[in-house]
Amino acid sequence: MKPKLWLYDTTLRDGSQAEGISLSLNDKLKIARQLDAMGIPFIEGGWPGANPKDVQFFWKLQEQPLKQAEVVAFCATRRPHKLAAEDPMLQGILAAKTRWVTIFGKSWDLHVTESLKTSLEENLAMIQDSIAYLCSQGRQVIYDAEHWFDGYKHNPHYAIKTLQSAIAAGASWLVLCDTNGGTLPHEITEIIEGIYTAIPELNHPDYPHLGIHPHNDSGTAVANAIAAVRSGVTMVQGTINGYGERCGNADLCTLIPNLQIKLGYDCLEQSQLAQLTQTSRLVSETVNFAPEERSPFVGRSAFTHKAGIHVSAVCKNPLTYEHIVPEAVGNQRQIVISEQSGISNILHYAHKFGLTLEKHDPDCREILSQLKNLEHQGYQFEAAEASFELMMRSILKQRPPLFQLQGFQVHCNICPESHDFSSKALATIKVTVDQQYLLEVAEGNGPVSALDRALRQALTKFYPQIAQFRLTDYKVRILDGTMGTAAQIRVLVESSNGQERWTTIGVSSNILDASYQAVVEGIEYGLLLQSAIKPQITPIT
Amino acid sequence: MKPKLWLYDTTLRDGSQAEGISLSLNDKLKIARQLDAMGIPFIEGGWPGANPKDVQFFWKLQEQPLKQAEVVAFCATRRPHKLAAEDPMLQGILAAKTRWVTIFGKSWDLHVTESLKTSLEENLAMIQDSIAYLCSQGRQVIYDAEHWFDGYKHNPHYAIKTLQSAIAAGASWLVLCDTNGGTLPHEITEIIEGIYTAIPELNHPDYPHLGIHPHNDSGTAVANAIAAVRSGVTMVQGTINGYGERCGNADLCTLIPNLQIKLGYDCLEQSQLAQLTQTSRLVSETVNFAPEERSPFVGRSAFTHKAGIHVSAVCKNPLTYEHIVPEAVGNQRQIVISEQSGISNILHYAHKFGLTLEKHDPDCREILSQLKNLEHQGYQFEAAEASFELMMRSILKQRPPLFQLQGFQVHCNICPESHDFSSKALATIKVTVDQQYLLEVAEGNGPVSALDRALRQALTKFYPQIAQFRLTDYKVRILDGTMGTAAQIRVLVESSNGQERWTTIGVSSNILDASYQAVVEGIEYGLLLQSAIKPQITPIT
Repeated sequence: MKPKLWLYDTTLRDGSQAEGISLSLNDKLKIARQLDAMGIPFIEGGWPGANPKDVQFFWKLQEQPLKQAEVVAFCATRRPHKLAAEDPMLQGILAAKTRWVTIFGKSWDLHVTESLKTSLEENLAMIQDSIAYLCSQGRQVIYDAEHWFDGYKHNPHYAIKTLQSAIAAGASWLVLCDTNGGTLPHEITEIIEGIYTAIPELNHPDYPHLGIHPHNDSGTAVANAIAAVRSGVTMVQGTINGYGERCGNADLCTLIPNLQIKLGYDCLEQSQLAQLTQTSRLVSETVNFAPEERSPFVGRSAFTHKAGIHVSAVCKNPLTYEHIVPEAVGNQRQIVISEQSGISNILHYAHKFGLTLEKHDPDCREILSQLKNLEHQGYQFEAAEASFELMMRSILKQRPPLFQLQGFQVHCNICPESHDFSSKALATIKVTVDQQYLLEVAEGNGPVSALDRALRQALTKFYPQIAQFRLTDYKVRILDGTMGTAAQIRVLVESSNGQERWTTIGVSSNILDASYQAVVEGIEYGLLLQSAIKPQITPIT
Repeated sequence: MKPKLWLYDTTLRDGSQAEGISLSLNDKLKIARQLDAMGIPFIEGGWPGANPKDVQFFWKLQEQPLKQAEVVAFCATRRPHKLAAEDPMLQGILAAKTRWVTIFGKSWDLHVTESLKTSLEENLAMIQDSIAYLCSQGRQVIYDAEHWFDGYKHNPHYAIKTLQSAIAAGASWLVLCDTNGGTLPHEITEIIEGIYTAIPELNHPDYPHLGIHPHNDSGTAVANAIAAVRSGVTMVQGTINGYGERCGNADLCTLIPNLQIKLGYDCLEQSQLAQLTQTSRLVSETVNFAPEERSPFVGRSAFTHKAGIHVSAVCKNPLTYEHIVPEAVGNQRQIVISEQSGISNILHYAHKFGLTLEKHDPDCREILSQLKNLEHQGYQFEAAEASFELMMRSILKQRPPLFQLQGFQVHCNICPESHDFSSKALATIKVTVDQQYLLEVAEGNGPVSALDRALRQALTKFYPQIAQFRLTDYKVRILDGTMGTAAQIRVLVESSNGQERWTTIGVSSNILDASYQAVVEGIEYGLLLQSAIKPQITPIT
């Protein structure tokens, strides 16, 4: 059994410095509780005192503590030529009332003289005083050595001195930060060896341990963390999905399975590791970023097979094209439906949808040809399996008609002079259900929501369960001119019945047409879900 | 000077196996010519014979050859128990008439027996025959050893034999493929050392050289390539933006600057390296993927500074937070405007826009407060600098009124019975320009395009230059309920005047309102561009 590795998540602090991320207090609490459930031992919560949100975050956790994780408060060393005990930032970090705190200080002489504008000696005192003061207040201190690798490359003697100050003051961990992300794996190995040579006491278990905090500016953050662990480091800092300033931090969703499954380190329980994909998606939803589909281990494409030759091999033996078992990280294999699909992909889907279809059935070719034709027009069923199932059912004559649209009109009148740029849109719709003719009108915030409401209003009279359906996501994409004649618009609609979610697609040169197609199929699929043949869809997490 | 490294791009073949990518013939030609201009020596063009598009691609390049790059045709070894000279795939690759060809064969015994369903001996014969035949036809052969690392881990003795067959047959390069992407950097190093021990002749310059083809399933493709190069490999295969099956291939946009700038290998001319960012964006546009903003070196966020503390330091000395000079790879530093912005970010932008603004000017605080207020409502100016400039100009009273909107109406009538789901929308608009009242009506494919046309129709009478403006991109995003009251919709519109592009933003609960705001500001900014104070914007590449 390899030694225990301590995972340290900084999504809530370093991660939120990513361009485009702005977390609310509730967002932060939601993410912290998920990380806690997944068994991450250290969760850096923020910089108390830097802004009111981070102060409140620590208050909230005092009221309702996490189950097992240590939440960590973060701040800088004291200011030059001030007393640690009188520094407002250090008072702020104490007020957070955490057992563990992280203090960052300067390792690189350039930053001491150029950014801090103080002497090299004073910087050592700042590190030592701040850590010693926090220890005297009963805190366990993690020392983040900012710009460690750059500092060491420029002035190794001074960089080592900063670590010695932190050791003398009583830090529990010395975390080597590659703040600018410019270091490559072999340099990590060499420099860590240099530290053990310069400070041989670090080999002794009673001395502080080393940690690593890599950034991804060279695209090697994960490899850098692995190199550090193989050199003896016992704490790894990173973020979920690798979010962070510039090119991000080490992605824990990639790093953890590498360390645990491939290298055998003890990080999480197996059942916790199986929550990794779910955690990745929860965090991307919370920060409102599209999930990175190509992410190793947790991305939707990570175990996706598209080329016909791969599909047939992986169906025979998954080891042939999969480096780990997808379920170990809570992910799953995907066989993609696309222009490149063959009959084997169609059969895979028929089985998944619970439809009976044989290889030599002429419907098989008909489905494939319809698929290629629609994808040529701009449909993309990879992201809209519900619509693909409906299309298959049409061809297999297993799609009962639920209603028929006769037409719709949308009207929108906007008067900016009233300073009301949230004016309503109006939709009228004509449908027949079971030979009954219905005319309905509804208002909505925009034309799509007006249309959606009018349609539901009409159909709910026949299918009351529609009242539970909700539009949970709506995406629009303009397809460029290379796709066909005029610019086509692709709309993806995600719907939910409270238990399950499914995605449907519409394509047209008119956004309202495309939206209508996707909305209607979303309702139809929801009704189908309640019928006998229940297809497999994604459960709400 | 370190030895020459040979870059081998497989964006057009392996890259196009990525989920969601489907390249037209013209797309492929456009990318090939850009790679050629950037100085990539080997460009894998496709599998001639596998589909008509790849056949045509090689024909087109026979008519109009590339300037300096070798375009390479790709295919598998001959089929089991057939003659190489009679194999239709090998005839296909010869018909492509390239000087160089790449043949892939099986290294892993499992794949030989399970996928190929043939004997281990026959697989060696397939490798040897195919390469020898292509050499006899005057081709230079690159041998891709598929699943090399997995094969070696399971049966090193057999894996080595496959390389020996390729050497005996006359291959010029032996490329070690980590097809499943499961290998970590230290394993790459160990296994390559194992090859040199098993086949010591490979140290001799007259013998074939080694290459590497890593996949990114462990998030270490770039680090794996670096480890291989440091172990003596002289060819590196990858794709632009790392596109490829599942989690993708080694990203050449990350790998090349690491190899050249950090490790000193000879890959490209400096002026060619400076085209890297442009090439990355051209390829992402061509495959119709959003550019990965966090990409190392070439991403929009790669040299972006957001936290106030970083901004002030990097302005003093770029070395403090930048690992390389952004211009070396054709990228540039960005200072971000966001909620976290301070006065220094505002001043940076004022300077960029050519506006006079002093630190203690009360307008500075007013702009910052307006910015935070609008971002709270769901605006995000990071992606819409043109709108940010207009907002600043409003506050500074440097935004001349060009027209005034009195109101607009949009109407859309759809009859699906006519099977015409591309019906037109109608927009009427009332504007005053220079105290003249104008009422215009226009039709469009959808409501937004109808609105855009009606507005242009009205304004072109006063500002004829508007006729040159085009809407080049239109993006819609639903903001979740956490942002404010009801769901807000954010629209980003990119406009162009043929020379330059700029992006504007609109936010509303009604998609038409939001679109209108963004469209109007897009036109206004285009007119502003032609006035005296010409702001800095992104030139069309």
